[in-house]
Amino acid sequence: MKGWQFTGTNIPLELIEKEDPKAIANHVVIDVKAAGLCHSDVAALQDPGWMPLFPNGPVIMGHEFAGVVIEVGEGVEDIKVGDRVGANPMDRATKVTAGYNYDGGYAEKVRVPAHQCVKIPDGVSFVEGAASTDAGITAYRAIFSIGQAKEGTKLGIIGIGGLGQFAVQMALIKGCEVYATDVSPEARKLAEELGAKVYDTILDMKEAECDVIVDFAGFGQTTADALEAVKLQGTVVIVGMGKLESNINTYLMITKEIKLLGSNGGTVEDLKGVYDCFATGKMNPNLITIPFEEIDKGLEKLKNHEVKGRLVAVVE
Amino acid sequence: MKGWQFTGTNIPLELIEKEDPKAIANHVVIDVKAAGLCHSDVAALQDPGWMPLFPNGPVIMGHEFAGVVIEVGEGVEDIKVGDRVGANPMDRATKVTAGYNYDGGYAEKVRVPAHQCVKIPDGVSFVEGAASTDAGITAYRAIFSIGQAKEGTKLGIIGIGGLGQFAVQMALIKGCEVYATDVSPEARKLAEELGAKVYDTILDMKEAECDVIVDFAGFGQTTADALEAVKLQGTVVIVGMGKLESNINTYLMITKEIKLLGSNGGTVEDLKGVYDCFATGKMNPNLITIPFEEIDKGLEKLKNHEVKGRLVAVVE
Repeated sequence: MKGWQFTGTNIPLELIEKEDPKAIANHVVIDVKAAGLCHSDVAALQDPGWMPLFPNGPVIMGHEFAGVVIEVGEGVEDIKVGDRVGANPMDRATKVTAGYNYDGGYAEKVRVPAHQCVKIPDGVSFVEGAASTDAGITAYRAIFSIGQAKEGTKLGIIGIGGLGQFAVQMALIKGCEVYATDVSPEARKLAEELGAKVYDTILDMKEAECDVIVDFAGFGQTTADALEAVKLQGTVVIVGMGKLESNINTYLMITKEIKLLGSNGGTVEDLKGVYDCFATGKMNPNLITIPFEEIDKGLEKLKNHEVKGRLVAVVE
Repeated sequence: MKGWQFTGTNIPLELIEKEDPKAIANHVVIDVKAAGLCHSDVAALQDPGWMPLFPNGPVIMGHEFAGVVIEVGEGVEDIKVGDRVGANPMDRATKVTAGYNYDGGYAEKVRVPAHQCVKIPDGVSFVEGAASTDAGITAYRAIFSIGQAKEGTKLGIIGIGGLGQFAVQMALIKGCEVYATDVSPEARKLAEELGAKVYDTILDMKEAECDVIVDFAGFGQTTADALEAVKLQGTVVIVGMGKLESNINTYLMITKEIKLLGSNGGTVEDLKGVYDCFATGKMNPNLITIPFEEIDKGLEKLKNHEVKGRLVAVVE
């Protein structure tokens, strides 16, 4: 099979030929149909700080993928040959991740643990199925599994990038009242078009008395401002890592009895939740497809900020 | 009746004569038997920043009290004349508080809303009943209502002052595994005597892999260190206001999916919880009684850090 191999920092991915993976116990082999391109991969190609995440030497990159199961190993019960599946890229117990610790989805075939796979519902495409596995589950977990948003929840979204767009759409589908803010006027306009009520700043959002505010930016001050804006006994979820620290007002935390909750990635349950949202037919994230052969060029475009939306490579 | 009246910052409390309070609808009048002396009162006597909490001019101070109900107003159903009760000093909905917004418990009689009163179980003294209403409920709420500690929970306690001592004892009664730390060797010794496993520093407590850590100190760095020490997907509760801000590591918050929760005061349910702990006969906080006539001298001692334990004034 063909695959795009990562060798080290500042070395472009190389399209190599490699033997097809074979199913082993509790694993499945997927014939990849779509693979999303992620900013993490751009970062790993530029920043030597990412090298410890590649403990096993050169690997085929790619951690957002979907396809058709072509082989199942011993002990696999819930997934069978022919199933259309997406995979949670990370085993949450071990942190072992496709495309870093072992060969990932920038390939014609990929082998993953069966327990990380989720069946894609009818009517949801492979492109959607792939894009759901990273931006989708991260947004879903932050809002619903950690933030506990439900029908009628007043939900504030900080940052209308890739995750924020998924967030706004899924929250509206689930019947939340959605409020959004972003430093970019363009992003605010997009949030408004998606159906959110938009505020210029996080502090302006105080007016909405949100039950839950999710910070997809995570620039330190954004989290501090969310604590100001959220209602009494409200919840603030931090997901974004724009900056890795925040100077928070603990007097506010205490007197308002605020819950500040960290949220990281997602589970297969979260991925099922995203697929259920797609199955409603109401999700419409900005997904841009490119041919599998142009994954290297796509990552270059991502690096140069030339992409508005999520790039997904399609394997013909 | 007699009562100790607060007039303004830097003016000593004055023992005045005042007309007895009469019951009004949904209120009860309590014949005060014991009233705890609180650091907040010392602060209010020294710091003009507290004056906005006294919106109605001079009042009898005191927000930790217990006694016998001598009169009930119209509409009061659950409390009757002769009941031994303690009172949650603050109405959580309105923030209106005895001893600040209206005449409090440094008096022979006090009138409070009936819904803030809790019956004191047999075998629990008025002195214990009074001391429970502030340090007791604040510690109880932080550990059990907000922190959700249960039998078997590995619970870390930061700061073994008044609240911390209540915390250690109540947690042990409820069957938690209790770990404690304090900057003072003397306080650490006390925690050990009470039955906690003691660590020299918060970071050392990492070894215990606590499910929940409650920060009764709240000195900014104490909260930041608690995030380091708590286990994956653990909970850190902030109660102490040693410093009103904390520079927290949001990368840790996110990757460990930590819950950071503010906790403030307590409810009547929390007060019931404290009384249940006392009713076991296993609580033994350091309570030092003084005569009602010496409340002014007691506050002076508190101010000069001459008190080891909680001062409670007894009305003969």
